[in-house]
Amino acid sequence: MGKKSKKKDKRRQDTRFAAAIDLGGTKVLAAIVDEDHNIVATAKVKTDVGGGSENVVEQMAAGVLKAARKAGIDPADLVTVGACAPGPVDPTTGLVSVAVNLGWTEPVELGKLLSKNLGGIPVLVDNDVNVGIYGEVVAGAAKGKKDVVGIFVGTGIGGGLVLDGKLRRGSRWGAGELGHSIILADGPVCGCGNRGCIESVASRTALERDVRLALESGRTSMIADLMAEKDGRMTSGIIDQAVREGDALITELMGRSNRYLGLFTASIVNILDPEMIVFGGGVVEKLGDLMLDPIRTVAEANYLQKDGSVEIVAAQLSDHAAIIGATALALEAYG
Amino acid sequence: MGKKSKKKDKRRQDTRFAAAIDLGGTKVLAAIVDEDHNIVATAKVKTDVGGGSENVVEQMAAGVLKAARKAGIDPADLVTVGACAPGPVDPTTGLVSVAVNLGWTEPVELGKLLSKNLGGIPVLVDNDVNVGIYGEVVAGAAKGKKDVVGIFVGTGIGGGLVLDGKLRRGSRWGAGELGHSIILADGPVCGCGNRGCIESVASRTALERDVRLALESGRTSMIADLMAEKDGRMTSGIIDQAVREGDALITELMGRSNRYLGLFTASIVNILDPEMIVFGGGVVEKLGDLMLDPIRTVAEANYLQKDGSVEIVAAQLSDHAAIIGATALALEAYG
Repeated sequence: MGKKSKKKDKRRQDTRFAAAIDLGGTKVLAAIVDEDHNIVATAKVKTDVGGGSENVVEQMAAGVLKAARKAGIDPADLVTVGACAPGPVDPTTGLVSVAVNLGWTEPVELGKLLSKNLGGIPVLVDNDVNVGIYGEVVAGAAKGKKDVVGIFVGTGIGGGLVLDGKLRRGSRWGAGELGHSIILADGPVCGCGNRGCIESVASRTALERDVRLALESGRTSMIADLMAEKDGRMTSGIIDQAVREGDALITELMGRSNRYLGLFTASIVNILDPEMIVFGGGVVEKLGDLMLDPIRTVAEANYLQKDGSVEIVAAQLSDHAAIIGATALALEAYG
Repeated sequence: MGKKSKKKDKRRQDTRFAAAIDLGGTKVLAAIVDEDHNIVATAKVKTDVGGGSENVVEQMAAGVLKAARKAGIDPADLVTVGACAPGPVDPTTGLVSVAVNLGWTEPVELGKLLSKNLGGIPVLVDNDVNVGIYGEVVAGAAKGKKDVVGIFVGTGIGGGLVLDGKLRRGSRWGAGELGHSIILADGPVCGCGNRGCIESVASRTALERDVRLALESGRTSMIADLMAEKDGRMTSGIIDQAVREGDALITELMGRSNRYLGLFTASIVNILDPEMIVFGGGVVEKLGDLMLDPIRTVAEANYLQKDGSVEIVAAQLSDHAAIIGATALALEAYG
């Protein structure tokens, strides 16, 4: 037996492993993660949504087995499974309210069904943004911090709160819906139907709305050509390129949405007084300080306590944050 | 010995007592409170601020002794003292940053000084709005609740958060500054120097500003005569009377500020998902549901989770909330 496999065997003996299932907005991913938050293997789960929720859960369980096989781990040795899904999730029952991409419009007992399909292994299910920020706290941008607010800017704006080292789930499992804080009363209509939520003025969807309106009204921008190359979609990559090349329209519109994000950050700091704000999402990950510096400047001008110690940083784990956070929470609960 | 005094003696033997010191915005109050949150005696503290902070703290200690004498309690039997002050307070050291009405512009070690003046008794010091909402949770409108947000509408807007049964103090003791959440970006200038904070559109100061502007521009209102009778001040009593008598100007302006408070309530619920929101302050106490019903209507229309279970209620303990909350916290820490 070589040195490497001896070391591996030693690790296998001492280390506990958990599986993850991430029911993202567009894909389902299974993974094996060790208790030190290292991702050992991942497996995409092909979901044929035709056979109903029980059938989909069977496919997820198969995905877990596949990831375990790739990791060289006996599924019987898995300690627990951490799963996450969009929308409000009751982690005490594992009840997922809705998962549009899986055709689930009625609540599904994901925790119970997954556990049944995997020989009774304990399963923890939580909201995907919640576990994402928890992942950043245990192993990413906020490692070692106890009071962290995560703000994820994508097609919507999601959020997660870790207060005193604990994920804040809320009394109806609805805490952390930061995107629907009103920052501009009577402002633009939001996806939620209300007006002036931060999501309605600073999400990628809001930016795209304003870019399109500007182009329709005759403004010019390199964005128009870049979008045409991508079948009309305004991706994070396009925004990144246009900002870096100094496009006037995107500079103006990003300046405005970053200012709103700065005002919102200040409000959140005045309410919760966390140590750190972690910004995640495709555009933030690409632009980094080009986006965070204007947010920091506005936020710092609007804090009530101006001691300069609130850190505003970019998320580090990208798509892996949820997998790492879900397994960490599951190991804490059932490890 | 009569039946009454026997009963009293029995109570005295079994019950623990704490003292309170409330450094309010305009007055200093001492009190004796038992562990069941009953106020046994109060004493106003006359403060001659000329002799510096040590001298003022000596006067506070004398106030505690006076309240103990009124309560018939040996000061040596007091378990602890709970004190509260405006602004950020570090409860681990009892350091009060600033108390304008006492002429304290430099930080004062209130906890340490009070303890020294009272024979070494342990003293807990915290922010006055924080302890006020804690008082409502242990013995007032939110009794039995674990997840409560307090919003106090006065000359400013203060707040306090009790999450999972614990007061949220924040990583710099600055949590709960709800009044400086921005609800109307680029709106009116706030007392803090920023624009569009909820305090700038929905505090009594904001209402008074808008009433005066309306009167100056030629609008008529019964408020003008009522204020003239009170040396030009717009008290809670005047607002109450004008609302109840259907004054058009105050109805319009209160409608607007209640709408902002409703939108703000929805934002807070979307962020923190508490069980209950407690509204306090002079105007709320006088108007009750006349003010809370419009707030409820707007808030409910703007919740992301519309299960109707968030309770919005008026505070019950008024000026006693802080005294009760401060002693409850002190007894938890040192009892």
